[in-house]
Amino acid sequence: MAETRVRVVGIGMGPQHVTPEASEALRSCDYALAAEKSVDDPLLAVRRQVCGEHGLELVTVPDPERDRAAPAAGYEAAVHDWHVARVTAYARVLASRGGTAAFLVWGDPSLYDSTVRVVEALAERLRLDYDVVPGISAPQLLAARHRIVLHPVGRPVHLTTARRLHEAVAAGETDIVVMLGGAPELTAVGDWSIWWGANLGTRSEELVAGRVCDVVAEVEAARERARASAGWVMDVYLLRRESAG
Amino acid sequence: MAETRVRVVGIGMGPQHVTPEASEALRSCDYALAAEKSVDDPLLAVRRQVCGEHGLELVTVPDPERDRAAPAAGYEAAVHDWHVARVTAYARVLASRGGTAAFLVWGDPSLYDSTVRVVEALAERLRLDYDVVPGISAPQLLAARHRIVLHPVGRPVHLTTARRLHEAVAAGETDIVVMLGGAPELTAVGDWSIWWGANLGTRSEELVAGRVCDVVAEVEAARERARASAGWVMDVYLLRRESAG
Repeated sequence: MAETRVRVVGIGMGPQHVTPEASEALRSCDYALAAEKSVDDPLLAVRRQVCGEHGLELVTVPDPERDRAAPAAGYEAAVHDWHVARVTAYARVLASRGGTAAFLVWGDPSLYDSTVRVVEALAERLRLDYDVVPGISAPQLLAARHRIVLHPVGRPVHLTTARRLHEAVAAGETDIVVMLGGAPELTAVGDWSIWWGANLGTRSEELVAGRVCDVVAEVEAARERARASAGWVMDVYLLRRESAG
Repeated sequence: MAETRVRVVGIGMGPQHVTPEASEALRSCDYALAAEKSVDDPLLAVRRQVCGEHGLELVTVPDPERDRAAPAAGYEAAVHDWHVARVTAYARVLASRGGTAAFLVWGDPSLYDSTVRVVEALAERLRLDYDVVPGISAPQLLAARHRIVLHPVGRPVHLTTARRLHEAVAAGETDIVVMLGGAPELTAVGDWSIWWGANLGTRSEELVAGRVCDVVAEVEAARERARASAGWVMDVYLLRRESAG
C-alpha cells in the first residue's frame, strides 16, 4: 500500500475559485474525504461538484453530533469533543484505504474552519504527512462584491465571530469582519456602516450595504430570501465605525 | 469606441493562484494597466507573466514618486498624494484607449492594496463602471505553508501593519497578522510565537517558526537570503501570545 498522505485544499466558494495550484493538488489525490451530515448539506454538494470536475471519488463518513446549543463558556469544549469524534471516523477510512486523501475546505483553511486541526490530530495518530493549499475566503469575496478594502488606509482590520462581536466593539475596534454570522444584536452599532453578504458566490447570493440602523430590516429580509432560495444561509459582514466629520 | 470599463483582478502570488473566475475576467479585458517603477519591480514581472498567459497586452505608465520617508503622522497624506498622481496617469490612458482595462493585483484587492481606491477615484473622474475579483492573499499562503489556522478556536485574529504592531500589542491583541513588514522591533513580543514567511510562492520563499526570542536571528538571516536571491523581500507573519500553562 502506498504511503498514506493528506492534502487540505481550499476551494473558495466553489469551482470558480479553484486555483491551478488547488486543481493540481486535487488531481494528485486518490480520493476525497468529507463528513456527511444527517441533514442536507449545501457544502457537500459543492465538494461533490469540484470532485466530479477533478475525477476524484468522494468518500463520506457520517458526521458526529455536535452540541450546538452549548453556551459560550462550553463552546471550545463542545468543538473539541466533536473534533475527536471526527478524527476517529476519518482515521478508520485512512487506515483501511491508504493512499493520498484530499479534504476540500469551503473558503480558506486558515479562517474559522476545523479541517487543519482535525488533520493535525489525524497526522499525529496515524503518523502521516499533510500539506495545505489556500483558497478564496468569504471576507475576500464580500469585499470584492462591495468593491471595498477591508480597512482604512494603513489601518488594522479585526476578524471575529458573531459570538464575540460585542467584545471587539467594547475593545474599541472600528473595522470588524464578522464570520459565522447568525443574527447577532446590532443595536449597539446602529450608527456604524455595514457591508453584508449571504450565500456569496452562489445563485442565492444577497448583498446589502448602508448605515446599520437604516438597513437592518433589509438585511433581515435578504437573509430570509437567501434561506428560502437555497434552503440554508451563511453570512459574513464588515462593520465600520465611521469617524466623525 | 466601446464603453470604458475596469476590472480589478486579484492574482494571488502568481499564475498558480489565478482562479478560473480571475482567468475569465482577464480574458474579457482588452489590455492591462500597471505602474512602471524606475527600479526593478518583481511584481511587474509577475503581472507580465499572467498577462502573457492570458494574451493580454500590458500597458505601463510611469509610477509617480511616493514619499516613503514620511513620518507615521504624514503617512495617510503621502499615500493620498501618490494616489492622486496615479489616478491622473491612468485616466490619460483610459480616456485615450477606452475598452476594458484590467488591473492585476498581487494578492487580494481587499488587504493593504491601493488599487480599489485608485480605481474608485478613476470611476468617479471618468464615470466608468468597474468590478473586483478576489485573489489569494499573503496571510493565507503563510497559514497554508505553516499548516496553521490564523486564530485559536472561535477567537479573533487582528490584521495590521508593522508600523502599527505596537498599538495592537498594547491593546491586548493576542493573535496578530502583520503585513507590509519591514523589520519591526520584536523585543516587546520576545516570548510570543511567530510564524514568518518572505517572498511566499516564489523560488526565494523563506519560512521560519518558533518563539520570537529564539528565532529572531534566524528570521533576519532568512530575510537576507530572500533579498539576496530575489533582489527584493516582502514578508508577512503571525504573532501569537501563547496563554500561560
